[in-house]
Amino acid sequence: MALIVQKYGGTSVGAVERIQAVAERVKRWREQGHQIVVVVSAMSGETDRLIGLAKQIQERPEPRELDVLMSTGEQVTIALLSMALAAKGCPARSYTGAQVHILTDSAHNKARIRDIDAARVRADLDAGRVVVVAGFQGVDEQGDITTLGRGGSDTSAVAIAAALKADECQIYTDVDGVYTTDPRVEPKARKLSRITFEEMLEMASLGSKVLQIRSVEFAGKYKVPLRVLSSFGEGEGTLITFEEEVVEDAKISGIAFSRDEAKLTVLGVPDQPGVAYQILGPIADANIEVDMIIQNIAAQEALTDFTFTVHRNDYARALEILQGIAQTLGARQVLGDTQIVKVSLVGVGMRSHAGIASQMFASLAKEGINIRMISTSEIKISVVIDEKYLELGVRTLHEAFGLAGDPAP
Amino acid sequence: MALIVQKYGGTSVGAVERIQAVAERVKRWREQGHQIVVVVSAMSGETDRLIGLAKQIQERPEPRELDVLMSTGEQVTIALLSMALAAKGCPARSYTGAQVHILTDSAHNKARIRDIDAARVRADLDAGRVVVVAGFQGVDEQGDITTLGRGGSDTSAVAIAAALKADECQIYTDVDGVYTTDPRVEPKARKLSRITFEEMLEMASLGSKVLQIRSVEFAGKYKVPLRVLSSFGEGEGTLITFEEEVVEDAKISGIAFSRDEAKLTVLGVPDQPGVAYQILGPIADANIEVDMIIQNIAAQEALTDFTFTVHRNDYARALEILQGIAQTLGARQVLGDTQIVKVSLVGVGMRSHAGIASQMFASLAKEGINIRMISTSEIKISVVIDEKYLELGVRTLHEAFGLAGDPAP
Repeated sequence: MALIVQKYGGTSVGAVERIQAVAERVKRWREQGHQIVVVVSAMSGETDRLIGLAKQIQERPEPRELDVLMSTGEQVTIALLSMALAAKGCPARSYTGAQVHILTDSAHNKARIRDIDAARVRADLDAGRVVVVAGFQGVDEQGDITTLGRGGSDTSAVAIAAALKADECQIYTDVDGVYTTDPRVEPKARKLSRITFEEMLEMASLGSKVLQIRSVEFAGKYKVPLRVLSSFGEGEGTLITFEEEVVEDAKISGIAFSRDEAKLTVLGVPDQPGVAYQILGPIADANIEVDMIIQNIAAQEALTDFTFTVHRNDYARALEILQGIAQTLGARQVLGDTQIVKVSLVGVGMRSHAGIASQMFASLAKEGINIRMISTSEIKISVVIDEKYLELGVRTLHEAFGLAGDPAP
Repeated sequence: MALIVQKYGGTSVGAVERIQAVAERVKRWREQGHQIVVVVSAMSGETDRLIGLAKQIQERPEPRELDVLMSTGEQVTIALLSMALAAKGCPARSYTGAQVHILTDSAHNKARIRDIDAARVRADLDAGRVVVVAGFQGVDEQGDITTLGRGGSDTSAVAIAAALKADECQIYTDVDGVYTTDPRVEPKARKLSRITFEEMLEMASLGSKVLQIRSVEFAGKYKVPLRVLSSFGEGEGTLITFEEEVVEDAKISGIAFSRDEAKLTVLGVPDQPGVAYQILGPIADANIEVDMIIQNIAAQEALTDFTFTVHRNDYARALEILQGIAQTLGARQVLGDTQIVKVSLVGVGMRSHAGIASQMFASLAKEGINIRMISTSEIKISVVIDEKYLELGVRTLHEAFGLAGDPAP
C-alpha cells in the first residue's frame, strides 16, 4: 500500500464527463489498496471566465479580491469530483486550501507555500476516504485567501505530497510523459521512463512546458518522487528520480528549446570597468529578466560589444531602455534580433562524458547552422541560433546523440 | 453615524452593472458618515447553474459537497463587489462565511446559525472599510462549509446585524417595501412606512414573499430593526418596528394570501377519542406540514367529519395516506380540493378593536364568497375560500378595512 498524491489539471477536469473519468481512475488506484489524495485545478476556461468578470469591473483588479474570486474555480471542481467519487461508491471529502491550512505568504496572486498541516488529510485517509484538495490556493496568516499564480496546482500537489511524505506525486497532464524533445518538432522523439530531478529542472527552465519549474524546485527541495503521466491514456509516464545511476549510460537525456527569445547588442562601448552594470542595471530596474550574456572585445581597440538575451515579450521595452543608455555611454549602435531561438542539450551524463560540446557544435556546423551565443552549465549546453534553423537543429542533435528509438525498459 | 447592515439579493447583483450600482449606493451611504456591512447573495442564476452541474453527477448530491459547491456563488459576488467599491475609491474587504466565523450547526443545505465572531468585521469598520460578507453560508465546528438553505442570505444579514448590534438591517429587494397587500392583485395597495415585527411575522408565514420567515424570527429574537427597501429605486421602504403604538389607529395593517393551499376531508369517522391523532399521525410521519384543522359533528350521530389543509405540493401524498387510513378507521369517504386559497387579515390593532371578524365575514358574504374554513390568532384572521374568489376577496377586504390611499406620513 502506497500513499499517492495525484494532480489533475484544468483540461483533465474540464467537463462533467471528464470529472467522472478522473473519479473512475482514482477509484481504480484506491481499489489496488493505495491511499489517494487528489489535487485539482479549476475546470478549463473557468479561471479565464472569472478574470473576465473582474476586468469588467477593474482593469487591474484588487489582488486580495482577485484571489477570493479565482479560488472559487477549484472549489467547484473539488465538490464535483467528491460527488463523482461518492456516486461510484468511493467515500471522499473535499477541502479548500484554507481548510487544510496550506499556509502561504501574503503575496496575493503569486503566493508561496510556507507550511501545510496534514493532520486532517491524514485522518481522512486513515478512515478510508479519498481526500480531494483544491490546488493553486492557500491561506495566509491573517486567514485571507491566496493563490499561487498560474500553474500553481502542480506546486500544491508537490507540497501536499511533501507534507504527507507521500510515496509518489503523480502529475496527470495531456501528454503521457517527458520526451527527449517536443514530438511536434521531432516525430522520432522518445518518451523517457525516467529522468533525474536536475535534468527535469533544466528542461522546465529551458522551455519544456510539461511541469511548472516551481513545482520541480519544490519536489527537489523536499525529495518528492514525481511522475508525469497522461490523464487520458494509460501507461507508466515518466518518473522524475533522485537516483542518478539509472541514466549513467546515456550522455544526453533530452533537447529543450525556447522560441520566446530575443537578443540585444550594444556595439562599441568603452571597454572599462562598470560597463556591464551601466547597461544591465536599468534593465533589471525595469524588472526585465536577462538570460544569456556575452561581452566581446570589439575590432576597434578600447571598445567592446555587449550582447544579452531577454524574453521576447520584454524586447521592445529593453530596446527602448538601451537606446537611452547607449547615448550616455557613447556607444556606436544598438542592434536587436527577435528571430532567434535557444536550443539546449540536457543530461547528467555530461558530467562524466567529455566532448559533448564539441560534438554538438560539429553537428550543427555540418548542417550550416551558425551559433550566435553559447552558455553552459554542469548538465546543459545552450546555444542561440537563427529561428529558421530551430527544427533542423533539434532534429540534427536528436539524431547525433542517439535519442530516437524505443523507450528504455 | 450609524452602523448599518445592508443585504442585496441575487437579482440586485445579477450582472456586473448591477454590482456597480450596488457599489454606488453603498458608497453614498458611507459618504453620509455611516459604517456599512454589506451581505450579498450569489448572482441570480448562479446557484441554479451550480446545482445543475451537481445533478449531472449525482441525482441527490452529497449534502456536504453541495455546500462546498454552492458557497462559491456568494464568494464570487463578494469579490466582485469589493472590487467595484475599490474602483470607486471606497476601501472594502470581502469575507466568506467561514472567514468571519458564521458558526452553524452541521445540517448541510439547511444549517442554522449559532454564533458569529464579529471582531474581524469590527476592526475593518473601525479602519474605515466597507465589509462585504457572503450571505447564505457559514462554517460548522469541524471547519466544514455549510449553507443555510434558499433565502438564507436574509438570515445572514440579520444575524450579522445582531452580532454587531447594528442600528438597522436593510434588506434590499426588487420591491420597494411591504404593502397592505400584493399590488398585482389590488392595484390600490398602499406601501406601509412601518409595520410591527409580529405583523411581519404573520405576513411572512401567510405567504408574503418580501422577507424569509426565518430572518424575521431572527430579527424578533435579537431585536434587530429591519427595513425592506428597493435596490433599484429610492425611498424609505418599510421599517419593521418593535414599537406597537405607531400603528394604534389602524385596525388592520395588511392582507396576506396564499395560493399554495389544498384541503382534505375525511367524512364520517367515528367520533371517539384519538381520532385526530389517528388521522394526523401518519401525515406528520410523512413530514407533511398541516396548517388549519377543523373537526365537525356530522349529520349522523356518533360520526364526525375531519378537515385540514396542507401545502399544495403535498396534496397527492397526503391523499394517498388518508385513503389508507380511512379504511382502517371505517370512514365513509375521503374528499380533497386543490382549488382553494387562504386569505388573511393581519394587524396588531385587532387586539383593541372588537368585531373585526364579523366585519370580515360580512364583507365576504355581501360579495357571495363562501367561507370554507376559519382560523384565528391574536393578530390575524385567516379564511379558506374558493380559488376563483381570491382577487375579489382581497379587493373587497382591502376596501372594507380602508387600506387604500396614500401612505401614512
